[in-house]
Amino acid sequence: MQALIGAREMPLYRMMGYHIGWEDRQGNPMSNEPPMRHRGVACLTACSAAGGDVEAAVPAATAVELIESFCQIHDDVQAGNPQRDGRDSVWWAWGPAQAINAGDGLYALARTAILQLRERGVEPAAAFSSLQVLDSASLEVFEGRFEDLEAQERINLSADAWLGMAGRKTGALFGCAMKLGALAASADDSVTDGMATCGRSLGIAFQARDEMRQVWGGPGGQDAAAPDVLNKKKLIPIVHAFEEANLHTKRRLGDIYFKRVLGQEDVPAILTILDELGARDYCESLVQRHRTEALDAASVLPAEGAATVGVFIDTVLKS
Amino acid sequence: MQALIGAREMPLYRMMGYHIGWEDRQGNPMSNEPPMRHRGVACLTACSAAGGDVEAAVPAATAVELIESFCQIHDDVQAGNPQRDGRDSVWWAWGPAQAINAGDGLYALARTAILQLRERGVEPAAAFSSLQVLDSASLEVFEGRFEDLEAQERINLSADAWLGMAGRKTGALFGCAMKLGALAASADDSVTDGMATCGRSLGIAFQARDEMRQVWGGPGGQDAAAPDVLNKKKLIPIVHAFEEANLHTKRRLGDIYFKRVLGQEDVPAILTILDELGARDYCESLVQRHRTEALDAASVLPAEGAATVGVFIDTVLKS
Repeated sequence: MQALIGAREMPLYRMMGYHIGWEDRQGNPMSNEPPMRHRGVACLTACSAAGGDVEAAVPAATAVELIESFCQIHDDVQAGNPQRDGRDSVWWAWGPAQAINAGDGLYALARTAILQLRERGVEPAAAFSSLQVLDSASLEVFEGRFEDLEAQERINLSADAWLGMAGRKTGALFGCAMKLGALAASADDSVTDGMATCGRSLGIAFQARDEMRQVWGGPGGQDAAAPDVLNKKKLIPIVHAFEEANLHTKRRLGDIYFKRVLGQEDVPAILTILDELGARDYCESLVQRHRTEALDAASVLPAEGAATVGVFIDTVLKS
Repeated sequence: MQALIGAREMPLYRMMGYHIGWEDRQGNPMSNEPPMRHRGVACLTACSAAGGDVEAAVPAATAVELIESFCQIHDDVQAGNPQRDGRDSVWWAWGPAQAINAGDGLYALARTAILQLRERGVEPAAAFSSLQVLDSASLEVFEGRFEDLEAQERINLSADAWLGMAGRKTGALFGCAMKLGALAASADDSVTDGMATCGRSLGIAFQARDEMRQVWGGPGGQDAAAPDVLNKKKLIPIVHAFEEANLHTKRRLGDIYFKRVLGQEDVPAILTILDELGARDYCESLVQRHRTEALDAASVLPAEGAATVGVFIDTVLKS
């Protein structure tokens, strides 16, 4: 990622470096702890687990991480998030118009990255398939993001609709990452398909885990509800509650969710309803079900590779 | 374009069909006169002029038109344009967040389009080069759009800086279109390079002609200045005026341009200053110089092909 972005002089690329976390707003290097790059690591892990040389998968891993970064920048504009990872978001620092440009540019760089697969010795057919995989996954991600924005306008969303949306919005890129890793390892179709399924299930489990954390916090709990709760996002615990509530409880939820703006003072009542409806157990079993699906899909690999993928899956779901 | 977008059901694709002009907001077919698709036609013209079968270039022509549409949608969000081609712009109809998604999706579809070159019989090496050409042109377009937004914050921009910006913002995609056409015709390097130069020069001439029209209107003149004049865009006539004005005239221009908002009542004074500084002749000679460069570059083609490209160039510059 640094080779692609760092060498370019134009201020457009400074916005990208800032977002990814190497630079401050003035373009000076920063040495923060880098965030987990789950999708890139998923790609490299799948390549290695399928018996490939991870170096071959680096362009693909770079591409999926650049797409994730691009989506984050556009997401912050779309949702109006002023902050990301404790710093001003790109649109907050440079304005929405330039943030849109920075995101578009990262998407183009993702394409530039994946074209380098051939230079890493990936066979032409696998390199060409990789391009198709990346493009169709990107399109699926935009479909999922479209559904996500549409769902915010609606009061209820079925758990099935949530699953479809999470599969597109998050599962598609994880699935793409792992499939690209297998392609870079010249794996056969059963392995590349298995890795795609594995990544997609992992992505859904990760999304559910992430949304649980926004409601209930991490292992140590949290002081305040995350902005997405107050933004009435269709987080899976809330989706479950709307789906399972009886008429009386639906009315209590409606009293809260029909308010124009939610505040911290509304959160205890929401948490009480979620408790009554067993939302936490429901979400935990959803995570476990997709974790199991991911592990099952990884069983197309030789035992050692499957074990490596298993460790990776649990790292992602615990992080 | 219709084969790629029309067959998809999700409402995301209805925004695209609306923008491109086939559908109304409810998704019902519309039979308006389609707009000129200069970039797509540039690609097909270059292919044919270089002795190729235009059918082979259709995926590439589709890709550049989808990129142009994607840029228009994001541009309308960035500039806050409520209208395009006499209809509500996508963000005005669906909101900026979904408009960003629709643009992102069109970009992904452009990639999907160009991957079909192989199915049209284009050789692997030329198909692979085409991908690289499209990606690096896209990146250049975003660089130019970045500069364009930055320039709006500044009072002056040199004519040289304008030329660099126009080359990136508009020239890059025209150059890419014509180069892709030559690649689809399996032309040799001298021809593909010539077509790239031809398209880039044509793009700059087209941009200058378009900005002249925003100031002075088309052949029949116009009643009111275009929004870009009032938005203090760094249109080439204005750029020339700021560069050529003496101290006294600079002060007159400054009095106008330091206002927070320009109104129609400021336009006569601007037009007077442009007249005094010969801005119209300057811009016309800029157009002619780049037209000549484009024609010269086309002379790498056989005489008949060069003549075809010449007719196309004049069509674009008169449209």
